[in-house]
Amino acid sequence: MKVINVILVSGGVDSVTLLHYAKKTRRGQDVLALSFHYGQKHVKELECAAYHCEQLGVPHEIHDIKPLVESYWKTSSLVGPDEVPEGDQKQSTIVPFRNPTLILLAASWLWSRLGSCDLGVVWYAAHKGDATTYPDCTPEFVTAMNDLLLEASKPYKNIEVFAPFVHLTKAEVVRLGLLMEVDYAKTWTCYKGGERPCNVCGACIERTKAFEEAGVKDPLS
Amino acid sequence: MKVINVILVSGGVDSVTLLHYAKKTRRGQDVLALSFHYGQKHVKELECAAYHCEQLGVPHEIHDIKPLVESYWKTSSLVGPDEVPEGDQKQSTIVPFRNPTLILLAASWLWSRLGSCDLGVVWYAAHKGDATTYPDCTPEFVTAMNDLLLEASKPYKNIEVFAPFVHLTKAEVVRLGLLMEVDYAKTWTCYKGGERPCNVCGACIERTKAFEEAGVKDPLS
Repeated sequence: MKVINVILVSGGVDSVTLLHYAKKTRRGQDVLALSFHYGQKHVKELECAAYHCEQLGVPHEIHDIKPLVESYWKTSSLVGPDEVPEGDQKQSTIVPFRNPTLILLAASWLWSRLGSCDLGVVWYAAHKGDATTYPDCTPEFVTAMNDLLLEASKPYKNIEVFAPFVHLTKAEVVRLGLLMEVDYAKTWTCYKGGERPCNVCGACIERTKAFEEAGVKDPLS
Repeated sequence: MKVINVILVSGGVDSVTLLHYAKKTRRGQDVLALSFHYGQKHVKELECAAYHCEQLGVPHEIHDIKPLVESYWKTSSLVGPDEVPEGDQKQSTIVPFRNPTLILLAASWLWSRLGSCDLGVVWYAAHKGDATTYPDCTPEFVTAMNDLLLEASKPYKNIEVFAPFVHLTKAEVVRLGLLMEVDYAKTWTCYKGGERPCNVCGACIERTKAFEEAGVKDPLS
């Protein structure tokens, strides 16, 4: 049985940590990375994703799904014309069903690469802090997603989703990353498209807090 | 509470019957239709979808998702370079995770159209005959999909999937359609892209069998 791990890497703190974690813990298995360009304003994060994949020797594809998502996701301030809000009010940044859609795309991508006895694992970096705003980041969602992948692929393929950080806080993710010497200067979190982090959007506020709680200085601050 | 019903209409026998059924049973509610151009060879089906929507006065959108699916679905003979097989061997026509992906896209499309107390219902025409080949057509899949939609949208939106034909055979779907006087001359089933049905692909064989079992002549035969 071959195991193919596909890591969804946005280029932020959480998914970059996940990539390092997968590479360290799945020796002898295939580890690949997928990133999506879905019209996010903070497209800079994709360069960070590419940097870490190259550093770790992980094959990496960036898929452009903008033509699709413009029809479905533009109501989110992360993608559409609305301003990304300041402060910790993040509701407008919800992208409807983004995570299940990306997980399904990754699973579809895996389908043809898997023999009938192989296992495909889609990794994504949801953590406890995300779950307060984003319904597609909760443990219950991960369970439901796994049931769906099972029902929609049996008896042909074995594909599951794995979210090892789902019970960790962002600070705990950072601590894990520091143990693995992840270079967080090469990660991007800010939802706005600027040269430097804005330090006022919800994502920046959470990042700063996570590094503080982890007891280290954010290299981007 | 407003209810918005979105009917996934391919233009085949099953989804056209579903469209008529929704329109007849959901008076007073919004009924809309969505079709997807995903690179299927039998794109002729979309004209049939448009015909029935116009006849019933159902607002209809056709979304072009080819740019996306070329990366994910081309291993299916329905989309990619492989020949559509003849006879009832349909395994190569499986499009990985097609139904959950289309249902999620429809649900994403609904998201911004629903207030917090409204209900969105995505209808799709899976029936018992599909379930023997396609895992994303079983009752268990529909249950899993509903759980996923719930988990990935709460507490913001109420969106569910509804597959009223999931326990019917294709012949039973045809009988229901005949009761509603659906014009099956304006439906398209054949997986190949020809002018006339090939009568040898799995989809044609099933269609012919369903009309025979329903005790009527297929107007396309």
